[in-house]
Amino acid sequence: MSRHRHKLSKKAGLSPGTLHLEGEPRIGPVRITLMDYDAVRYMEKQCDSIEECFPYRDTGTITWINIDGLANTEVIEKIGRHFAIHPLILEDILNTEQRPKMEDLDSYLYLNLKMLMLAGPEKEIRAEHVSMIIGPHHLISFQETVGDVFDPVRDRIRRDGRIRKNGPDYLAYALIDDIVDNYFIVMEQIQERVEDLEEELVVHPLQQSLRKINQLKKEMIFLRKAVWPLRELITGLERTDSPLIQESTHIYLRDVYDHTIQVIDTLETLRDMVSGMLDIYLSGLSYKMNEIMKVLTLIATIFIPLTFVAGVYGMNFHYMPELTWEYGYITVWGVMIAIVIVMLSYFRKREWI
Amino acid sequence: MSRHRHKLSKKAGLSPGTLHLEGEPRIGPVRITLMDYDAVRYMEKQCDSIEECFPYRDTGTITWINIDGLANTEVIEKIGRHFAIHPLILEDILNTEQRPKMEDLDSYLYLNLKMLMLAGPEKEIRAEHVSMIIGPHHLISFQETVGDVFDPVRDRIRRDGRIRKNGPDYLAYALIDDIVDNYFIVMEQIQERVEDLEEELVVHPLQQSLRKINQLKKEMIFLRKAVWPLRELITGLERTDSPLIQESTHIYLRDVYDHTIQVIDTLETLRDMVSGMLDIYLSGLSYKMNEIMKVLTLIATIFIPLTFVAGVYGMNFHYMPELTWEYGYITVWGVMIAIVIVMLSYFRKREWI
Amino acid sequence: MSRHRHKLSKKAGLSPGTLHLEGEPRIGPVRITLMDYDAVRYMEKQCDSIEECFPYRDTGTITWINIDGLANTEVIEKIGRHFAIHPLILEDILNTEQRPKMEDLDSYLYLNLKMLMLAGPEKEIRAEHVSMIIGPHHLISFQETVGDVFDPVRDRIRRDGRIRKNGPDYLAYALIDDIVDNYFIVMEQIQERVEDLEEELVVHPLQQSLRKINQLKKEMIFLRKAVWPLRELITGLERTDSPLIQESTHIYLRDVYDHTIQVIDTLETLRDMVSGMLDIYLSGLSYKMNEIMKVLTLIATIFIPLTFVAGVYGMNFHYMPELTWEYGYITVWGVMIAIVIVMLSYFRKREWI
Amino acid sequence: MSRHRHKLSKKAGLSPGTLHLEGEPRIGPVRITLMDYDAVRYMEKQCDSIEECFPYRDTGTITWINIDGLANTEVIEKIGRHFAIHPLILEDILNTEQRPKMEDLDSYLYLNLKMLMLAGPEKEIRAEHVSMIIGPHHLISFQETVGDVFDPVRDRIRRDGRIRKNGPDYLAYALIDDIVDNYFIVMEQIQERVEDLEEELVVHPLQQSLRKINQLKKEMIFLRKAVWPLRELITGLERTDSPLIQESTHIYLRDVYDHTIQVIDTLETLRDMVSGMLDIYLSGLSYKMNEIMKVLTLIATIFIPLTFVAGVYGMNFHYMPELTWEYGYITVWGVMIAIVIVMLSYFRKREWI
Amino acid sequence: MSRHRHKLSKKAGLSPGTLHLEGEPRIGPVRITLMDYDAVRYMEKQCDSIEECFPYRDTGTITWINIDGLANTEVIEKIGRHFAIHPLILEDILNTEQRPKMEDLDSYLYLNLKMLMLAGPEKEIRAEHVSMIIGPHHLISFQETVGDVFDPVRDRIRRDGRIRKNGPDYLAYALIDDIVDNYFIVMEQIQERVEDLEEELVVHPLQQSLRKINQLKKEMIFLRKAVWPLRELITGLERTDSPLIQESTHIYLRDVYDHTIQVIDTLETLRDMVSGMLDIYLSGLSYKMNEIMKVLTLIATIFIPLTFVAGVYGMNFHYMPELTWEYGYITVWGVMIAIVIVMLSYFRKREWI
Repeated sequence: MSRHRHKLSKKAGLSPGTLHLEGEPRIGPVRITLMDYDAVRYMEKQCDSIEECFPYRDTGTITWINIDGLANTEVIEKIGRHFAIHPLILEDILNTEQRPKMEDLDSYLYLNLKMLMLAGPEKEIRAEHVSMIIGPHHLISFQETVGDVFDPVRDRIRRDGRIRKNGPDYLAYALIDDIVDNYFIVMEQIQERVEDLEEELVVHPLQQSLRKINQLKKEMIFLRKAVWPLRELITGLERTDSPLIQESTHIYLRDVYDHTIQVIDTLETLRDMVSGMLDIYLSGLSYKMNEIMKVLTLIATIFIPLTFVAGVYGMNFHYMPELTWEYGYITVWGVMIAIVIVMLSYFRKREWI
Repeated sequence: MSRHRHKLSKKAGLSPGTLHLEGEPRIGPVRITLMDYDAVRYMEKQCDSIEECFPYRDTGTITWINIDGLANTEVIEKIGRHFAIHPLILEDILNTEQRPKMEDLDSYLYLNLKMLMLAGPEKEIRAEHVSMIIGPHHLISFQETVGDVFDPVRDRIRRDGRIRKNGPDYLAYALIDDIVDNYFIVMEQIQERVEDLEEELVVHPLQQSLRKINQLKKEMIFLRKAVWPLRELITGLERTDSPLIQESTHIYLRDVYDHTIQVIDTLETLRDMVSGMLDIYLSGLSYKMNEIMKVLTLIATIFIPLTFVAGVYGMNFHYMPELTWEYGYITVWGVMIAIVIVMLSYFRKREWI
Repeated sequence: MSRHRHKLSKKAGLSPGTLHLEGEPRIGPVRITLMDYDAVRYMEKQCDSIEECFPYRDTGTITWINIDGLANTEVIEKIGRHFAIHPLILEDILNTEQRPKMEDLDSYLYLNLKMLMLAGPEKEIRAEHVSMIIGPHHLISFQETVGDVFDPVRDRIRRDGRIRKNGPDYLAYALIDDIVDNYFIVMEQIQERVEDLEEELVVHPLQQSLRKINQLKKEMIFLRKAVWPLRELITGLERTDSPLIQESTHIYLRDVYDHTIQVIDTLETLRDMVSGMLDIYLSGLSYKMNEIMKVLTLIATIFIPLTFVAGVYGMNFHYMPELTWEYGYITVWGVMIAIVIVMLSYFRKREWI
Repeated sequence: MSRHRHKLSKKAGLSPGTLHLEGEPRIGPVRITLMDYDAVRYMEKQCDSIEECFPYRDTGTITWINIDGLANTEVIEKIGRHFAIHPLILEDILNTEQRPKMEDLDSYLYLNLKMLMLAGPEKEIRAEHVSMIIGPHHLISFQETVGDVFDPVRDRIRRDGRIRKNGPDYLAYALIDDIVDNYFIVMEQIQERVEDLEEELVVHPLQQSLRKINQLKKEMIFLRKAVWPLRELITGLERTDSPLIQESTHIYLRDVYDHTIQVIDTLETLRDMVSGMLDIYLSGLSYKMNEIMKVLTLIATIFIPLTFVAGVYGMNFHYMPELTWEYGYITVWGVMIAIVIVMLSYFRKREWI
Repeated sequence: MSRHRHKLSKKAGLSPGTLHLEGEPRIGPVRITLMDYDAVRYMEKQCDSIEECFPYRDTGTITWINIDGLANTEVIEKIGRHFAIHPLILEDILNTEQRPKMEDLDSYLYLNLKMLMLAGPEKEIRAEHVSMIIGPHHLISFQETVGDVFDPVRDRIRRDGRIRKNGPDYLAYALIDDIVDNYFIVMEQIQERVEDLEEELVVHPLQQSLRKINQLKKEMIFLRKAVWPLRELITGLERTDSPLIQESTHIYLRDVYDHTIQVIDTLETLRDMVSGMLDIYLSGLSYKMNEIMKVLTLIATIFIPLTFVAGVYGMNFHYMPELTWEYGYITVWGVMIAIVIVMLSYFRKREWI
């Protein structure tokens, strides 16, 4: 959350279109990797400077330039100049708070989305802002840091898969598909946590649980913001009349659209479950309270009358005939036991015990 | 739920269009049955290999090939090659988590939906992923396992019903209609369970009930995902300008659409009832708590003052004139009885007893 | 509810278009009444067989055939043959669970809706499935049993009202208008019950009340299903380009549409009230619990310290100087009275008494 | 509410288009006032009979006929005949339960809405059904009783304002604008009541408050029904292609539309506040209960152990060594004080006191 | 809130289009500042009278006239006459309660929105009504008081930024962008307060907290009314076919639209959090109540039986054999300790301690 705030205060007052990294940058150097391929050839290399990649643009082969790390805005600016990218698009690439969207700028398409991964030993959810520029023969992707979910795509390029026979639009589809596939893994982990918490709430509602519910709620909101706009983004790609998206790619976009809908469905289901948790927590508390009250009532209602009886014969009146009766003491015990039996059978009748 | 998870983890990272069975397969061999008919002739047989069925495609009669069991992906691939099915459609056939949908691929229509049945002695709800390929003279249906709800359709084919005079589109309608009819039976069973649980909640709210509510909620969500997309699917069939759906079938599609709406209505009603159950549970708990508190209050407020009175005359002061009075003891009893009467009439006035 | 279930189990597996009465039939013979009129003439008679009515179809006058009782499916079938009604429409006429709808079948219009009446000494809501077939010069109406809300329409036909100068479309409007008018009466009765229950909940929340709330909720759901589709039905009648609905009838349809909206508004208001009732019930319980707790606290907190004081001087220590003081006893009483006063003024300050 | 019911029972069964006053009439004679003006001339008079007004229709000047009181249906019928008003429109004029709407009948426009006023010393909300017939050179307005919010409009006519240079459409706008302006006053009063009740709920939740909340809810529903349809009504006036609404009036209609949206916004805000009140009430109750429980627990948990100690030394065993110790009594007091101190510090630690 | 009310009562009854300041004016003189620039020149001055600014309109350069303070309606009227502004627009400029909107009046565009700032040492949210008139070569902005968020824009004009090369439409965009940027700062502050309050509710629910929740709710409603209509406003600017908005400005409008969506998203998230707070408050109360009840039950259920035992042997029966036993006293202590141990282990088993 603190990230968000920092960004906000910094941004206000800056001229739109001024390049600077929004969001708290994760430290790390910029790494540029290049894959150049067509149906027959394939080349892969890591570039030291962005200029190394530029010649590949016009070779007629498909060129995928991947930038890991947004801290070095100079690289972004150079790309912007070389590929004639609009300043506002460059700004969107750097704005890690940007809502997923697609824009058709005639000579290229821009799109950005959130890559979700489980990271670290705690399997925490890590989100990364990913942007893509789709040109006629190239695709440039931008990521916040080194490390992504695109290895399967790279393998398929190396292994001469269907991807090699298609253009940058199919490559973009493959990358999006990979990102969406990882959403399922994240959903699965959240689902486990939701189910564990639900069990905990029914059995042992703790003050701690309230915080866990709140935490889950906030994660849900974050995921929602990441996933929902994807629907629009993919529909946009499918409906655009840009020649950059080929007819044959449409069925693949529809497929990833279907998967997105499935993710959204799962997300909404989880949201429903989480939003009902406070009620389950309250129900759990009420149930426990009820149990406690029942015991208190049982003990108190049984012993209070008995104590009264004992109190009566503890009085010091001079003339209390019962006290002098030979069987007085034993009779009182009898009375008290009778009271207990009556009480217990009443409680049983009311189904309290 | 565990099924879902397995699927998810397995899928991520696989190239789209690679055939493999998604979802946990239910074990069982593949069974292929074939029905071939037109208005005058009718033939039915069980095939050992899928190749046996292929010649029937071009005989001019209607051919219904039914595949039970998706474990053997080789059969699916053969069908895919013979009937020229798009790889993504084959993938959808195998993906038992696929959301119901209809796709028009010009030379054939694809649709999938969920078949719901009550199975076993416990009448548990069993869901099966059913796909259909509708061609000009053939319909191929795919099911997860042997055993379905299509026997009435088979009987009607054998008995020379209206179905024999119509094309594969009418056959598809008949199958969908059968599936939707079975939704009613499932709804009916859930409705009974909902009503039983509702009664239980009003009379005896138990910690166990919370779990039952949660269980019902999850089943509702599952059913919702199975039933809602059907509406769109049928509308899609009706609105498509594909020559595969004849004009005369439209009124039948509208009829099954009406039934689907009825199922959705019932489902939404049940969902409303289930979503209100937690409140009923809480109300039940509160009511019971109230009853318990009333008894506690009654007993405590009556005996606490009496015990005090007894306590007073149990004091050992040397100069306590009441103790030596001849009628002291009897007077104290009188006072105590008076207190009880005052208390009880106060409670009666407040309508607590 | 049990009705619904029976229907459902019976239906599944039957060929669509097979005639049989769906829903539990109310016993009673079929009664066929005929009214034949135009602007100048008027004739009314009760027919023994449906064939008696057929000649009137082609006389050029308006013919209203009313069928009371759906148990005799033979009559329905005969009508179907004579008037060339589609089998699925005949099925809809018999399906008393059918959702209200309108269908334009070119040579005739079909519509069905729910007739609501208050019946019996308890003024229970009774719903009847009413269907109408609107032809160029005839209207055929089907009801579940004898007894309806159409007497005002019959009187207007007899009294030579505006209805005599118009076609079967105006007659259909008049019948729908009568049905909608009766919705108001039903709403009014429910409103009374809702208000009575609301008062009960505020003053005396009982376990019984929970059941009444549930009952009302279910009736609301039923009414909703009956009334909401009417809107669409009437809009359908107005928008159809069928020559069976004359231009001059449109303003009347708009009028009955307005009334339907008014019924829906009232219904939604009532639903809002009913859906808020559980909260009022809980509030009422909480309030009562609060009152009870206050009394318990008052009594307990006053007497517990007093009892302690009495207990202290009931101890049997040999050396307790207070016991031998001449004014010890009176002092203790003084102390105890002081405690009571302090307590009471504290409670007053906290506004608990 | 009783009004509504009466109307409903009366209406059912009457032929549509039969004139009779729907809703409970407020008693009072019919008063007819006439204003006739154009940019240069202006005339105002009170008519004894409606026939007096008829000649002004064709003078070429703008004629505003205002009818106060709907009890005399004869007057309405005469107007209907003279101005050729459709019977259903006359019925709408008399139906004081009619939902606000606009109808374009080619030769005239009909619209009705609710006039809200604060009336009497208690500033109760009074609603009146107002209808307008807008013709080419005349406007006829109908109100339930004498007394309205149109005096500002009359003054502007007399003072030769912009209104004098425009047609009946501008006059209609001015009247609607006046009615909407008064909605603000009504909203303001409700807002005050809502805020007062909210404060009461936080500080002193009473059983009485539940009723007040219910009362407010019902008023909200009433207002909602009165205000929401206005939006549609004004949009209808703006979008109609009737020559009766001049192009130059559109900007004014958009202005009053803006005001209506503002009223709806305020209303929805108030509704939100009122619908959250039951929760605030419950919170208030819970908080109070908590406070009471804390005191009870404090007193009980402190004195119950002390009373036990006192009870122990009130036992009459022959061999109780403590009783004969010289400092026994003082020691027991010490023990008891120690218990109190321990208890209090525990409570402090738990932040209960 | 009182502001709103005043406005409302004053407005009702005034002729539409009469100029007077609506809303409570913040005191302060009118200050007129003028910036005149094109790509090469730039001039800035503070004017004593509005007439000074008029000559700049027709110089061909871009003229930005900024009016601080709406109290002097004469200035507004003069501008209205000189620039031919419609009276209703002038009214909207003065109506500080006006909902944000955009209107295209052919020769100029009008738009208004809310400027939000954090003001004073307490960082309270201050809202100001800002209007803009966009002409072919001029932009006139109106603010309630001196002090705004436009300094970054002024700096960019002085520093010869991109703004100097564009028309008044780009200037309007820059101003709106500045206002929206400040919304983020306000959101950030509210977010902090929401999170602080949430923590407070979980740990220490106080009666005071209820008021804070209500306060936040009201601020949310206010912000919602300010921010939501912006979406429509910007879409309106983008979609208008007015030549006043140049094609090249569209991408900038889309950018500020994106930011507005981001603000709305944040706002809705905050609203969700605030609307769930009452439940968290209730949960917190319930949890605390549970804790208190547990202690009470523990103490009471342990000591009530012990006190009874002590009471029994405080009875004064002549024949109570236990009293004379040598180890009677020690045995009773043993019994009592045993009771305590049994009780404690029972509680431990139930997980209450």
